[in-house]
Amino acid sequence: MGITVAIVGLGQIGGSLAAALTRRKLARVIGVARREATARRARRMKILEQAGTDPAAVASAEVVVLATPVQTLLRQIPIMARIVRPAAILTDVGSTKKDILDAFRRAKPPAAVIAGHPMAGNERAGLDGVDPDLFIDRPWVLIPARRGDRKRGAVLEKLVKAIGAKPRWMDDPLDHDLKVARVSHIPYLLSYALLGTAEDAIRVCGNSFRDATRVAASDVDMVLDFLLTNRGPIRKAAGELKERLSALTAAIGRRDEGTLRILLERARARRQRI
Amino acid sequence: MGITVAIVGLGQIGGSLAAALTRRKLARVIGVARREATARRARRMKILEQAGTDPAAVASAEVVVLATPVQTLLRQIPIMARIVRPAAILTDVGSTKKDILDAFRRAKPPAAVIAGHPMAGNERAGLDGVDPDLFIDRPWVLIPARRGDRKRGAVLEKLVKAIGAKPRWMDDPLDHDLKVARVSHIPYLLSYALLGTAEDAIRVCGNSFRDATRVAASDVDMVLDFLLTNRGPIRKAAGELKERLSALTAAIGRRDEGTLRILLERARARRQRI
Repeated sequence: MGITVAIVGLGQIGGSLAAALTRRKLARVIGVARREATARRARRMKILEQAGTDPAAVASAEVVVLATPVQTLLRQIPIMARIVRPAAILTDVGSTKKDILDAFRRAKPPAAVIAGHPMAGNERAGLDGVDPDLFIDRPWVLIPARRGDRKRGAVLEKLVKAIGAKPRWMDDPLDHDLKVARVSHIPYLLSYALLGTAEDAIRVCGNSFRDATRVAASDVDMVLDFLLTNRGPIRKAAGELKERLSALTAAIGRRDEGTLRILLERARARRQRI
Repeated sequence: MGITVAIVGLGQIGGSLAAALTRRKLARVIGVARREATARRARRMKILEQAGTDPAAVASAEVVVLATPVQTLLRQIPIMARIVRPAAILTDVGSTKKDILDAFRRAKPPAAVIAGHPMAGNERAGLDGVDPDLFIDRPWVLIPARRGDRKRGAVLEKLVKAIGAKPRWMDDPLDHDLKVARVSHIPYLLSYALLGTAEDAIRVCGNSFRDATRVAASDVDMVLDFLLTNRGPIRKAAGELKERLSALTAAIGRRDEGTLRILLERARARRQRI
């Protein structure tokens, strides 16, 4: 409990992180929100010790977590880089990493910088979505901004583990963004596309459709934020997906049961390893 | 309990239907399996009153349900059409309907024919997947084969409702097959395509990927059966899906937040009505 964690942005992820740390007595959490009403609500929820709207509050923290939408984050990084204390760790929870790491490097903060991405979330927006167990068993990607930052980031890795998440160290932000496009952003796009084609067929839909379209209920602002900040990787991953789909429908068209069986068995085995 | 229902094919759907009827004391259920071992197992599970391997057993039933894979079903229809008693209702649970209704019409059974399709299922194959509550709140499509059959099918509709499913009368089997391609078969193909492109990105996957690929764990023979008997509609629906996906990625590529917001809000509203 000796450590102070400042969280800038009290949405679903920032709020859940505050709750996860506070409930487990892992840190003293201070929050910074854009609006005083949000700060007040977070205090009433008892997910943190103090909350306000002044970014200067982060100066007292050993770990500073930027948890605003990616497009806001990119504007905040140069400002925060000057406020955070040199011995601190500066991190974020943005779901795309290339632009964020570029911004961190340009800002040259004296603090250690480890960009982060918890692969967790639910369909409820803002503080309505707060869940202290949101990160349990979920991957939490960590990418050091510069040589030497990883070593200084041990405290952050420990906190990530302590709230139940699985730290996944990565080096290349573009590699991260392409992987995330493949396993997260494309499923979102497919859910919108499926709902677009379904029309009145929805009245006969079963579990496969419900599962495949669940994420379409997500907060639209949140989704637009990651779609618009990961444009290149998403288009590449969408191209790959369309090719795979075409290979499957071509095999169906020519009644090629042998090829289909191989593709399906392979996917099934992969799914069972998740 | 006065009614006798014969179920031919004791897999996940046939077995679950037997269990749903028996547990609720809605009918006396007799089962016909391909292998004696399956019939014996079904008897031990107490999901029916009697089970064997002789198709002639269906002659005593008021309702005969063909619950074998579609490709088997197409071979069985002419045989069953001659065994079923004229006053009975002959139905099936196949997930594609055009070829099945053509076969039913060609066979000209004296019994009433209502083709059926329960939109239900789980990832466990055969009798391992038996669940007496599998059909609760699920659509169950009913398509009369000929003029006059619908009126004679009232008993079947009553049974479908009694096990908790929602009867959905339809007229056009091709319309059914295209709708099912859109809301069921395409989600299956997308789950295989997603797993194909994911590769080592899987280690950072979150809930959206888990949800979107859940059906890939399904029994491969069952999936091949509906993919290979619904080729035309699947290819049409896959084309529609790719077009929708391209429209989304094009809007992302040109940073067209306005168009994206409209598409996402529309899909979200549609999802929330499910």
